[in-house]
Amino acid sequence: MNKEINYTGPSCPLPLDRYPKITSAHGGGGRLTRELVKKIFAEAFRESNPEIEHDSAILQLNKGRLAFTTDSYVVDPLFFPGGDIGKLAVCGTVNDLAMAGAKPMYLSVAMIIEEGFETALLWKIALSMQSAASEANCRIVTGDTKTVQHGKGHGIYINTSGVGLVPDSIEIHPSQVRAGDAVIINGDIGRHGIAVLTAREKLEFEDRIESDCASLSGTIEALLDSGIEIHCLRDLTRGGLGAGLNEIAESSGMGIVVEENRIPIIPPIAGACEILGFDPIYIANEGRFICFVPKASAEKTVAILKEKSPFKDPAIIGTVDAKAGGMVIMNTAIGSRRVIDMPSGEQFPRIC
Amino acid sequence: MNKEINYTGPSCPLPLDRYPKITSAHGGGGRLTRELVKKIFAEAFRESNPEIEHDSAILQLNKGRLAFTTDSYVVDPLFFPGGDIGKLAVCGTVNDLAMAGAKPMYLSVAMIIEEGFETALLWKIALSMQSAASEANCRIVTGDTKTVQHGKGHGIYINTSGVGLVPDSIEIHPSQVRAGDAVIINGDIGRHGIAVLTAREKLEFEDRIESDCASLSGTIEALLDSGIEIHCLRDLTRGGLGAGLNEIAESSGMGIVVEENRIPIIPPIAGACEILGFDPIYIANEGRFICFVPKASAEKTVAILKEKSPFKDPAIIGTVDAKAGGMVIMNTAIGSRRVIDMPSGEQFPRIC
Repeated sequence: MNKEINYTGPSCPLPLDRYPKITSAHGGGGRLTRELVKKIFAEAFRESNPEIEHDSAILQLNKGRLAFTTDSYVVDPLFFPGGDIGKLAVCGTVNDLAMAGAKPMYLSVAMIIEEGFETALLWKIALSMQSAASEANCRIVTGDTKTVQHGKGHGIYINTSGVGLVPDSIEIHPSQVRAGDAVIINGDIGRHGIAVLTAREKLEFEDRIESDCASLSGTIEALLDSGIEIHCLRDLTRGGLGAGLNEIAESSGMGIVVEENRIPIIPPIAGACEILGFDPIYIANEGRFICFVPKASAEKTVAILKEKSPFKDPAIIGTVDAKAGGMVIMNTAIGSRRVIDMPSGEQFPRIC
Repeated sequence: MNKEINYTGPSCPLPLDRYPKITSAHGGGGRLTRELVKKIFAEAFRESNPEIEHDSAILQLNKGRLAFTTDSYVVDPLFFPGGDIGKLAVCGTVNDLAMAGAKPMYLSVAMIIEEGFETALLWKIALSMQSAASEANCRIVTGDTKTVQHGKGHGIYINTSGVGLVPDSIEIHPSQVRAGDAVIINGDIGRHGIAVLTAREKLEFEDRIESDCASLSGTIEALLDSGIEIHCLRDLTRGGLGAGLNEIAESSGMGIVVEENRIPIIPPIAGACEILGFDPIYIANEGRFICFVPKASAEKTVAILKEKSPFKDPAIIGTVDAKAGGMVIMNTAIGSRRVIDMPSGEQFPRIC
């Protein structure tokens, strides 16, 4: 389902024979930095029309509220089935804006590049970022490049910050969650974490597992346009569904009861988790979110999600229950009840 | 002149006996990440009232244009005379907004922390950021924390992005530079670079050299309020005055002629540069900028700069000359003329 990124588009405009690898001077603020910005970033992000001649981008916005968010991306490996650090860095920040009910508009891109990083890879990553930004209807308008010595980084770390516009009527926030709300997920869980892990550890499973990394802004826009009263949204990245549910429960003071057998998961992920000893509800996703809506709107919400992403199996997975204040309870497939804790520690690092 | 940062304020709210060092799980998105964000960042940035319960901060702005900028900070060492990475990360981004004529309003903070980093230092850095943000009248409203394994970073890297409001009447941009404009600097050059270098290399000079790291937003506001027609502003960070002049010359297509003997520099910096073999015009500053104004407003501009920073020796250092299109020429102290090139390569890395 993931649109493949066209890395073979324009070839890298920085002369690769002269600069096959990033040098410390590429972050020095002098001629090479300027060449890097002009030849790689301004070219790759041309469609976005970034303002490279000035310290800040100047943006014209209509009256309204802004959403503003930031995330750094340190995923290892940089390329994995279904995506790469560039796509992730755009989709992740776009999704954070969408989760606040905002229409994502502008992105900044800041790179921390380790000396010796391959220039051709940098170009590939920049193209992937522009492709994801275009898909999310977002412009990359400002950026920064720093280099660090070999051994003081790990290839490339990318920060993206995002600005979006929140329509006046919208109030999407944990504090809006109400007892009786339905908890809906837009698709099956665990793909991103398992895809990254198998790529990193060079594991082989029968089925190739692709990350779910995707921009959610179109889906959220469709939900908002439908007039459904959305109380809260949360994307299920680090810490997975388990962390997302706990964050909302804690912030809202409400309890959440979920039904294990309604949580969608594809057999290859369930199998991989069993072999590796992971609980899939804590595995990171990069294209999944939960949505809190009044019970009466639950079926309509699922119908819209199905229309936007027909193969991803959206489902009503639970209910908000004021009695279990702040806790997340799971009715398990075997008929028992289990408290879903906030994950403590980390299943594996550098997932996003 | 630099206000000392009060590191001794509130003590670190994360139990230091339990977590004296940052662990990988502090970036895992689970309980420890949440504890870190709540105990360290939400506490340190309390005055800013950040939105920690949600993926994006929601900001109410009046109608108008926004400035949006981003910078990552990788300075080594993290603490240096006159500042630290936290103060730098706030002032640097505030200054980029100010250089676009914007009133800095909101900041994001994203940290990439190496496993094993001392929690007490993180707290110190967070306090320093809040102190700098307060001074610049800015709020830290959103953030992100990632951890990387030991040996894949260098203590801490910080990205800040900033959003500011640009008044409707203001048009500050390289394209606004006009032949005959005066080029004015707000103070003496070279302090930041030399302060960081001496701290990193443990050099000893007779006089302690402090970084000029400071927020420039108040100074720029005073200039704007005075009604002076400012054509362009540029802060003189990586690559120093030499890079700043060249960037504006190239972007505007105008030539710039500067007088060497008018460029302010204090004797300890001149001495250190001579010993170390550096050209001070390429040394990084973190509280200096150049300003392009009509010749008739030059004296008034200097007077305002003197009032805002009386000990820093603001000066008219040159003139825009359409004939030298795109080039920067220096009339040297010994009466010759020299082309000031864009620095190529890097004098020393990790300066900001």
